[in-house]
Amino acid sequence: MATYEVPMELHAYNRKKLLTSLRNHLESVKRPLFGFVLLQGGEEQYRYCTDTSDLFRQESYFAYLFGVKEPGFFGALEINTSLAYLFIPRLPEEYEIWSGERHPPSYFKELYKVDKVLYVDEMKDFLNEHGRVSSDSVLYLLHGLNTDSGNYSKPAHFEGIDNFKTDLDTLHPILTECRVIKSHYELDLLRYVNKVSSAAHIEVMRAARPGLKEYQLESLFLHHTQTHGGCRYASYTCICATGKNSSTLHYGHAAAPNDRTVEDGDMALLDMGAEYHFYDSDITCSFPINGTFSRDQRLVYQGVLDAQKAVMAAIKPGVSWIDMHKLAESRILHALVKAKILKGSIEVMLEKRLGAIFMPHGLGHFLGLDTHDPGGYLKGAQRPKEPGLNSLRTSRILEEGMVITVEPGCYFIDILIDQALKDPGIASFIVHEEIERFRGFGGIRLEDDVVITADGCENLTKCPREIRDVEAVMSGEPWPLV
Amino acid sequence: MATYEVPMELHAYNRKKLLTSLRNHLESVKRPLFGFVLLQGGEEQYRYCTDTSDLFRQESYFAYLFGVKEPGFFGALEINTSLAYLFIPRLPEEYEIWSGERHPPSYFKELYKVDKVLYVDEMKDFLNEHGRVSSDSVLYLLHGLNTDSGNYSKPAHFEGIDNFKTDLDTLHPILTECRVIKSHYELDLLRYVNKVSSAAHIEVMRAARPGLKEYQLESLFLHHTQTHGGCRYASYTCICATGKNSSTLHYGHAAAPNDRTVEDGDMALLDMGAEYHFYDSDITCSFPINGTFSRDQRLVYQGVLDAQKAVMAAIKPGVSWIDMHKLAESRILHALVKAKILKGSIEVMLEKRLGAIFMPHGLGHFLGLDTHDPGGYLKGAQRPKEPGLNSLRTSRILEEGMVITVEPGCYFIDILIDQALKDPGIASFIVHEEIERFRGFGGIRLEDDVVITADGCENLTKCPREIRDVEAVMSGEPWPLV
Repeated sequence: MATYEVPMELHAYNRKKLLTSLRNHLESVKRPLFGFVLLQGGEEQYRYCTDTSDLFRQESYFAYLFGVKEPGFFGALEINTSLAYLFIPRLPEEYEIWSGERHPPSYFKELYKVDKVLYVDEMKDFLNEHGRVSSDSVLYLLHGLNTDSGNYSKPAHFEGIDNFKTDLDTLHPILTECRVIKSHYELDLLRYVNKVSSAAHIEVMRAARPGLKEYQLESLFLHHTQTHGGCRYASYTCICATGKNSSTLHYGHAAAPNDRTVEDGDMALLDMGAEYHFYDSDITCSFPINGTFSRDQRLVYQGVLDAQKAVMAAIKPGVSWIDMHKLAESRILHALVKAKILKGSIEVMLEKRLGAIFMPHGLGHFLGLDTHDPGGYLKGAQRPKEPGLNSLRTSRILEEGMVITVEPGCYFIDILIDQALKDPGIASFIVHEEIERFRGFGGIRLEDDVVITADGCENLTKCPREIRDVEAVMSGEPWPLV
Repeated sequence: MATYEVPMELHAYNRKKLLTSLRNHLESVKRPLFGFVLLQGGEEQYRYCTDTSDLFRQESYFAYLFGVKEPGFFGALEINTSLAYLFIPRLPEEYEIWSGERHPPSYFKELYKVDKVLYVDEMKDFLNEHGRVSSDSVLYLLHGLNTDSGNYSKPAHFEGIDNFKTDLDTLHPILTECRVIKSHYELDLLRYVNKVSSAAHIEVMRAARPGLKEYQLESLFLHHTQTHGGCRYASYTCICATGKNSSTLHYGHAAAPNDRTVEDGDMALLDMGAEYHFYDSDITCSFPINGTFSRDQRLVYQGVLDAQKAVMAAIKPGVSWIDMHKLAESRILHALVKAKILKGSIEVMLEKRLGAIFMPHGLGHFLGLDTHDPGGYLKGAQRPKEPGLNSLRTSRILEEGMVITVEPGCYFIDILIDQALKDPGIASFIVHEEIERFRGFGGIRLEDDVVITADGCENLTKCPREIRDVEAVMSGEPWPLV
């Protein structure tokens, strides 16, 4: 597989979109169209007090506008002229010995296709001089809440910024909204990284067998995406959960480090995605380690698959994501009734939020330069309060161009089962002997990345999903990535 | 290859060593033997404002004493009783849904073999109560300079610590010195991770060929160490430098991301090491991509190899590392004279520091829980000022149990060649036509990890080094890792 040549027009288009949007806003509130959007890129980070540096990964808003892979940059957009500027660090001579060539501004101008490149130490004077065009000139800085982490993005800072008029409120919601709707350039890139990641998932499925360590599946995925797709970064830490671990939604972190030995009869839930040129994929496959679904595995899997298919058939512009979550829940509850784990009216179960016992996470999230791409809640939007729905990373009405994961799941989580059995209003829907039998089963999740189109959606992920296809692929049959 | 079962005695031994050393010191300065050593483990880190978490890696001093892989811990050693305490975070109920089982204190007491485990929220009261044993009770906190990074370790902090007597000066030098001399437990672990990394280097050598991308070599190394050795972390970002890139000492970072296509006739310089249970390996192999050394490659390589062998034959307790650096330099200068790149008296060249043109980095550094393990310069020790020697990460006299890298190199770095040619006192030693021919050659480095023994050293690294062995291994001949 040849790697993807990313056109720098992707970022020029992102910049243009931001400036159009920002100017429309400024006009609407009758503010002058002067000043700069100013962003600061990320800095190299070191491990605690040591000189061990983590592999630098650019801050995502900065990457969105400029596509710059190097640390220590600033970037600016001039609002009245639309010109794009990069400011690069002036590296010491020793850099050439330890870190490589010191490229001149002209190199980065050509590489990143911006209008002008200066050194960071020239930035203040430049902004001062250009600011003088109008006394209304303002630096629009990035400051705003990430609704997934609860953290705030850090506005650009340089010595002397106190002498400029700055605005911390305007830029963040506008730039975030630009990121929500993907361009055709971004979609091509997301298609590529999904294809690479899908191929690696298939490779892992075929290699999976009892006796392996979970981290060996992780390792194979990462190796495949890097060596065949040129993906040096993963979107997030691989979740390689087998057996009971697959009911831990975010398994795989340092305290639960994918170190179990896989056993015959286990389900595997592998949530792994590669990143390419800052853009992420996020894919979960669930399959029986031995290649053949047992009766119980088939029942639960088919319920999750039905949920995913129902959602994919229903989503289109204008549809509410909360409704999609509920649709997925109802299909999973249906399957659990069919499996005789639950009994009674599904409508009442939905009302009583029984779905949240088996799918405590949201149905999906925006995806782009971050695994949980921002913009899920517009300013002032309230997060739903009901169980399950309160985990939703967005409650928005879908629009064409949004890229979102569709990831229904069904898990048997001890603590949630215990709580449910203690609640008389809920316990009566549960067939106790049956649910006890499913403790330790783990969980199943199917996660695809889709883009909302004019009249539906396009699935960017290319993994086998039907039970017969999963079994066929695992037995070595071909699976074309079309 | 079965993975290595780390005995927790490793950390108990480290703790005992620290307490012995600390008590000796306190006695020598007539201070009371009361109070606690208190360390704070690392916390989970997130990427910028997002909820994308980096894979947590424990802070090394904390890992040294306690071997704890989870974030959010504190650890304490009681000076008068030698008892070891861990304080674990009290995790919220939702942890079981998202992150997995919440283990009780008894689980961690058993896992990490300490005397008592409490929750972090119980720590202040515990320290207060135990502190009352003596009014002389002090909290010894970790605060001190890392001489490689220039950064300071962060002392433990909790709300209310202001009410305790604390000492920021005593602990760091003593604990650092404990880390400098490795125990037999640590050596066994370092042998293991060196074996795993050596095997992966050999695998990469055999797979290398023109047409590959440098990052494909990186990917294969990481995959091999994780899948065969259980190494989920690398010691540092892989340096996969080929062709001219091999003259960039720390190639491979985000701005020079191992993305060149390897060409026939290139030398490869691959500096890659895996980590296992916090302990690092650090190995560099240099070889011709096509499997056969050219005449020029042979000349330079043999010079570097001679330097490495000369150093390994000479090192033993009592030897100065600065002398070893100079020994390596002289062998490399000899080779450059033999290759007719240099001419004249090697003694005068050494005096004029010509070696620093071709080996601008230090000969090696301590290795352990960090790639550049601390303790290279004792408090008050001066870093040498001469070119080349000023890059040394230690200037110490060698002692039994020190683990240090032996990594001579010879590089053709444009900026250093240019400077040399401009300096009349140095240019006269250089054969201009010849050195011009070597511009673009890149560089060669051979790096092994050795432990100083009673009468010499043991090489922990098991890679082929002789030219005939490198060529044989690359052509597929077996290489036993003994």
